[in-house]
Amino acid sequence: MKLKLKNIQGSIVAPIGFLAGGVFCDIKKLGTGKGSNKGRKLDLALIVSETPATVAGLFTTNQVCAAPVKVCVERLKKKNLAQVVVVNSGNANACTGKQGMADAREMVSFTEKTLGLSTGRALVGSTGRIGVTMPMDNVRAGIMAAAMELGTTPAHADRATEAIMTSDTKPKQIAVEFLLGGKKVRIGGICKGAGMIQPGMSPTGARPAALPHGGLHATMLGFITTDAAVEQKVLQAALTEAVANSFNRITVDGDMSTNDTVLVLANGLAGNKKFKVQSSEFRVFQAALNHVCLELAKKIVRDGEGVHRVVTVRVNGAKTIQDADAAARAVANSALVKTSWHGGDPNWGRIIDAIGYSAATVVEEKIDIGYSAPGAKKILWSLKRGQPTKATFKQLCAAVAPKEFELHINLNLGKANAVMYAADLTEEYVDFNKGDVTDASSLGG
Amino acid sequence: MKLKLKNIQGSIVAPIGFLAGGVFCDIKKLGTGKGSNKGRKLDLALIVSETPATVAGLFTTNQVCAAPVKVCVERLKKKNLAQVVVVNSGNANACTGKQGMADAREMVSFTEKTLGLSTGRALVGSTGRIGVTMPMDNVRAGIMAAAMELGTTPAHADRATEAIMTSDTKPKQIAVEFLLGGKKVRIGGICKGAGMIQPGMSPTGARPAALPHGGLHATMLGFITTDAAVEQKVLQAALTEAVANSFNRITVDGDMSTNDTVLVLANGLAGNKKFKVQSSEFRVFQAALNHVCLELAKKIVRDGEGVHRVVTVRVNGAKTIQDADAAARAVANSALVKTSWHGGDPNWGRIIDAIGYSAATVVEEKIDIGYSAPGAKKILWSLKRGQPTKATFKQLCAAVAPKEFELHINLNLGKANAVMYAADLTEEYVDFNKGDVTDASSLGG
Repeated sequence: MKLKLKNIQGSIVAPIGFLAGGVFCDIKKLGTGKGSNKGRKLDLALIVSETPATVAGLFTTNQVCAAPVKVCVERLKKKNLAQVVVVNSGNANACTGKQGMADAREMVSFTEKTLGLSTGRALVGSTGRIGVTMPMDNVRAGIMAAAMELGTTPAHADRATEAIMTSDTKPKQIAVEFLLGGKKVRIGGICKGAGMIQPGMSPTGARPAALPHGGLHATMLGFITTDAAVEQKVLQAALTEAVANSFNRITVDGDMSTNDTVLVLANGLAGNKKFKVQSSEFRVFQAALNHVCLELAKKIVRDGEGVHRVVTVRVNGAKTIQDADAAARAVANSALVKTSWHGGDPNWGRIIDAIGYSAATVVEEKIDIGYSAPGAKKILWSLKRGQPTKATFKQLCAAVAPKEFELHINLNLGKANAVMYAADLTEEYVDFNKGDVTDASSLGG
Repeated sequence: MKLKLKNIQGSIVAPIGFLAGGVFCDIKKLGTGKGSNKGRKLDLALIVSETPATVAGLFTTNQVCAAPVKVCVERLKKKNLAQVVVVNSGNANACTGKQGMADAREMVSFTEKTLGLSTGRALVGSTGRIGVTMPMDNVRAGIMAAAMELGTTPAHADRATEAIMTSDTKPKQIAVEFLLGGKKVRIGGICKGAGMIQPGMSPTGARPAALPHGGLHATMLGFITTDAAVEQKVLQAALTEAVANSFNRITVDGDMSTNDTVLVLANGLAGNKKFKVQSSEFRVFQAALNHVCLELAKKIVRDGEGVHRVVTVRVNGAKTIQDADAAARAVANSALVKTSWHGGDPNWGRIIDAIGYSAATVVEEKIDIGYSAPGAKKILWSLKRGQPTKATFKQLCAAVAPKEFELHINLNLGKANAVMYAADLTEEYVDFNKGDVTDASSLGG
């Protein structure tokens, strides 16, 4: 399959017929009249399609699941068309009981009314403090203000992107253009997330046996727009596949949030012919969506809280996919492995130790461990069949010195593979997350 | 049951007929003639019973399992009597292949010869670097030197204790005396461990379904002596039960070592009558052994690498023991929960998040979360039935301010309980474990 993706500007407003906006409406209730601008970043975003769009989504499998997630799951079950997503940062609307559910419902219905849309056309995402009810007067004011400033320029998308950020230090955006059945179509996306990051999302938030009990909480949110015409079922299939290989393969700290959400809206304005799953057009669309999701997911790991190094953990040769996944996650979440990455220490002892205690079936005498540059074919093996190679300590140190590298683990027991995009564990992560108890707003992380 | 335990001096040499010794034999091959004494702590210990003793053991369930563990498992299968344990620090003899097995066998047979014991009487434990073969000349010299300086004073036990330490900052010892069937008997113990600590040990090193895939590596080693007369089967039953509620309930960093080992030797010199499982004598012995193991295990958590705060995580009201265990481990190993403990932050949002993504079945609207002082009955609840209580942030901060406190989680779904003894995650842990790559000796952690 030849897929030519062209990177373009504008992220979520790059596809035809999408508008965005972001405002500050003081979700954290910092109050007014204070001298400091600390924390006064934008905190409410609208992402709007001019015409009703098919929509697909994936949601946290955490059993403690926030109200906005429940509202989205409900609405997606009805296979409604959607036209707007309202997203706030600063408050997760999680563990907020009946009031939280009422507030999430009010967010979608108020948004629908403000934009003059039919009932059921809005979806909602939230991220921020847990256990604090939403400041609904501020939210309503924010929705009205954001509706007033909607627009189609990259600057509008930038404002929406800023509005969904929490501990993120960088905005995370992408847009690509490609040919689908002879028509030019576009996919754009934005996301946020930096800590409480090991998503394990499913279409209904229910846990399939195969999903990791992994996870996020500065929460991982992703919003994708496309002007491709895609039927709901086809869109859900493509998103499920794309997320399985991107957002569900990342970990910063092994914690899965109550609010993780990825939504994709497809408004069809590019005018391509609809297509079926497994058609050649589907494969093209899938590949493009995979690319968008993976690039966004990697941006989350790179911008993870206190992260210095990003490591792609590739496990090959497992007996089953579950084994490959278990071994990759054990290594990617081991405190000792992660601190050694931080130290630039090629400590294969800690790696094989984590493989050994993982739920995967492994045989010590068959395990290979090696390193490569990202995407490079040449692997420097530190361990072959459970025994140290002749690679020198200096060579191994050089292999783990770059800001990004790949760790290759071959279990030599079968044909199943898995990959995890992981981060090191640094003093800065600890310092950032130990919180500031002089401020009750830290409650709920 | 009335059990009166008297704390006594001497740890492993407190029971009648036990001797100990520790020497420096340069296991790390630091060489001689250097000015610095850095790292020149004692590194080889012998623990000896004057007469053959019954022996029971538990070993890491890590599939990557060190040679000394394999040798012990082999020997315990034969239900041999034992008379000596040889233990070294500085080298784990793990991932050392056939040479490693030969070296572990040589360690036991050389020890037997040196002490004039029959074949099969020695056991072995190792901790330290992974993937480096043992310096057997140094080991043999150490065994001979330690054999020369064996003795029964507390100072001898202190030297053995020092010799098994790695990143430990404090020696970990205990001894108790109590009445068993009218006779005074004693149990003594020493242990080591500070990082790579979440043991999941079983009698054969094989994984029962119920054991956590948890774990250690500066490795957890525990050696217990008693002059009680206890049949091998009874001793194994008692140790399995005691470890299940102590060493297998601790976590520092969630990593399980390749070398975790607990051994108990019972030489019978106290002269009590032998007893059956479930007899009243058994219950007395079990309670005393539980106490010894739990006190030693807690010392490991308190001395964990960079640990500032120790938290007892109590999960009650789970549907099954597996659920209770899964919820307790998820909370105890969450990077976000652990950093909040470090910060003195009563962040129940992170706690309920971890409970929600654990493998346990939970219902958000039923979860209670609260705090107490160690052993205190009064609990300050921060969350009841999934909703914040009226406890103030200041009150909650005060509850998590002490160096040790208990976290109470009630799932309100059933009657199963579990406890984990856990530690916070600090900048010092990261700094310590990121290693010093100017020194190849860090390879293998």
